[in-house]
Amino acid sequence: TRQYCITLLPGDGIGPEILAVTVDVLKIIGQQFDITFNFQEALIGGSAIDATGNPLPEETLTLCRNSDAVLLAAIGGYKWDNLPRHQRPETGLLAIRAGLNLFANLRPATILPQLVDASSLKREVVEGVDIMVVRELTGGIYFGQPKGIFETETGEKRGVNTMAYTESEIDRIAQVAFETAQKRGKKLCSVDKANVLDVSQLWRDRVTLMADRYPDVELSHLYVDNAAMQLVRAPKQFDTIVTGNLFGDILSDAAAMLTGSIGMLPSASLGLGKPGLFEPVHGSAPDIAGQDKANPLAQVLSAAMMLRYGLDEPEAATKIEQGVLAVLDQGYRTGDIMSPGMKAVGCKAMGEALVKV
Amino acid sequence: TRQYCITLLPGDGIGPEILAVTVDVLKIIGQQFDITFNFQEALIGGSAIDATGNPLPEETLTLCRNSDAVLLAAIGGYKWDNLPRHQRPETGLLAIRAGLNLFANLRPATILPQLVDASSLKREVVEGVDIMVVRELTGGIYFGQPKGIFETETGEKRGVNTMAYTESEIDRIAQVAFETAQKRGKKLCSVDKANVLDVSQLWRDRVTLMADRYPDVELSHLYVDNAAMQLVRAPKQFDTIVTGNLFGDILSDAAAMLTGSIGMLPSASLGLGKPGLFEPVHGSAPDIAGQDKANPLAQVLSAAMMLRYGLDEPEAATKIEQGVLAVLDQGYRTGDIMSPGMKAVGCKAMGEALVKV
Ligand SMILES: CC(C)[C@H](C(=O)O)[C@@H](O)C(=O)O
Ligand SMILES: CC(C)[C@H](C(=O)O)[C@@H](O)C(=O)O
Repeated sequence: TRQYCITLLPGDGIGPEILAVTVDVLKIIGQQFDITFNFQEALIGGSAIDATGNPLPEETLTLCRNSDAVLLAAIGGYKWDNLPRHQRPETGLLAIRAGLNLFANLRPATILPQLVDASSLKREVVEGVDIMVVRELTGGIYFGQPKGIFETETGEKRGVNTMAYTESEIDRIAQVAFETAQKRGKKLCSVDKANVLDVSQLWRDRVTLMADRYPDVELSHLYVDNAAMQLVRAPKQFDTIVTGNLFGDILSDAAAMLTGSIGMLPSASLGLGKPGLFEPVHGSAPDIAGQDKANPLAQVLSAAMMLRYGLDEPEAATKIEQGVLAVLDQGYRTGDIMSPGMKAVGCKAMGEALVKV
Repeated sequence: TRQYCITLLPGDGIGPEILAVTVDVLKIIGQQFDITFNFQEALIGGSAIDATGNPLPEETLTLCRNSDAVLLAAIGGYKWDNLPRHQRPETGLLAIRAGLNLFANLRPATILPQLVDASSLKREVVEGVDIMVVRELTGGIYFGQPKGIFETETGEKRGVNTMAYTESEIDRIAQVAFETAQKRGKKLCSVDKANVLDVSQLWRDRVTLMADRYPDVELSHLYVDNAAMQLVRAPKQFDTIVTGNLFGDILSDAAAMLTGSIGMLPSASLGLGKPGLFEPVHGSAPDIAGQDKANPLAQVLSAAMMLRYGLDEPEAATKIEQGVLAVLDQGYRTGDIMSPGMKAVGCKAMGEALVKV
């Protein structure tokens, strides 16, 4: 039996509910594939602030570092919205990304045949969309120095952030992106703003250089404004997209929303070794927290990504993904993806349906 | 008779064709409204590079400064794509924005009833969309210092750009945005990334302060990733959007593409006095240049924006806008907006239809 130590980070809002369902699913999968998951739980985000004053307590980071994978649910809520930046839930998220050196963020935007009509786009435009956004996650303007609010010579304030990438930072994310594209449709689109930004010029040069090593992958480049347009106009043209931290934040969310069902979308954040971090794309939905209304499927699919990309258990991952498709085929729908003629269920009931398939 | 001196910048690609149509329309409008337009033409972009080596010759800037308004068509083309940055067409565009101090860029994304089906989004999602994006245009990461590609201590290269805003830069664009919202649906959404960026925190604070002066405008804030999602999910929720240079570049293009017909969208770039600059949202379309295939309507509508925002001739502006709707009602369509049962026309024929209405 393979043994994995998994750190669970339920976080805030609907986090605990969707993670509970996911743990149930993993336990069944463990039995079927002879895997033992040893779960340990830790604090992050708003609940960590409430308990310790720190959105990422040192203890949490240590537990994560010593585990094989981290399964995060969601963080944030109205309650913590007006705290100073270093005490905000998002700061915990940025700190764990940096602390575990998770430089590669994989965000699939896949439209499932059962949910095509949830999209705000026309069926013929989105049917079959299957995009993987590879977003750089520990560099760029999120972490660049100098940053802050400074006083100018005239006495007024000036807010400053720095978008910076070194060659090696670009190379390592480009490598992940080319390898990802190689396993998918062999098309990689690199997104930057090289007609205006120096940092993008370096980005484009390095990605172009890297392409020589992957002759089977077709590389193209788009400016970020055009990429945003093309995602809206004709998303099927994309296979794998690679871009920096800020552009990746914006474009992966836009791509996710093309599907109309972000309650279904998982993500993986990877470093060079273990552990990776796996979390749904959606947020903590404080408005429906604790009401058994949340859709647990993005969290469950994040566990599948954990099995595939974090633990190298692809069969178990596939099994979970098939289970999700099966409950959709059976007509089960949480409120966010409900449509006429389907069976409306809550978070727990969706979990029960899942473990039965 | 009112006299205005208009600098025409045909630029590259389809620029000359669409501008020629627009000048014809302005001449007719001049007769109808007792306005004399004195046109002078100057070089910008690729054609300026070819003629002078400089994408914005000093002479062009001087002519523009001494005119009442600038009507720009489009710049750029494959031919100049691989030149060093300071010799690229885009550099001319950035230089004229800075040179004329055009800090406020108004980009409407309006869906015309005649063209709803051109959108990749469902009719019920986009019907009636009428968004105005107010983009800051002379600050932020487009112009922030330091910028460049530097060598680090370890000898590798590091690309750097700086996203910076001072309080006064934020205040002046916020003021334009509140006043714009006041004349429209009285709803202003400010877009930033204040959960991560210090510069956005200052942005949000100043915009919030400014709101006290406009009690009749309802102000909201969205993070840029969420704004990109909401534009795709439910664009009708937006009236006026205000944001920085980079976010405005991305979001205004995404918003434009919601309409499915960017060949129809004009823009205005304004400073504190004269002259403003007016140009279509679309690019120079080198693939169809010189073939009489281009859609001139975005350029014509840019002339309407010039009359409304630059020359304070609102009746003449309305007349042009009504003319555009009329030719659409008559069924005239260029290739980019063609649909079954309509009358396919080229650029010139569209212009002839326009001057006849
Ligand atoms: C919460 C926020 C800091 C975060 C980000 O911007 O990276 C989120 O939007 C995401 O994409 O995971
Ligand atoms: C051509 C480019 C420099 C320009 C910009 O980024 O501002 C364009 O995309 C625009 O939006 O007008």
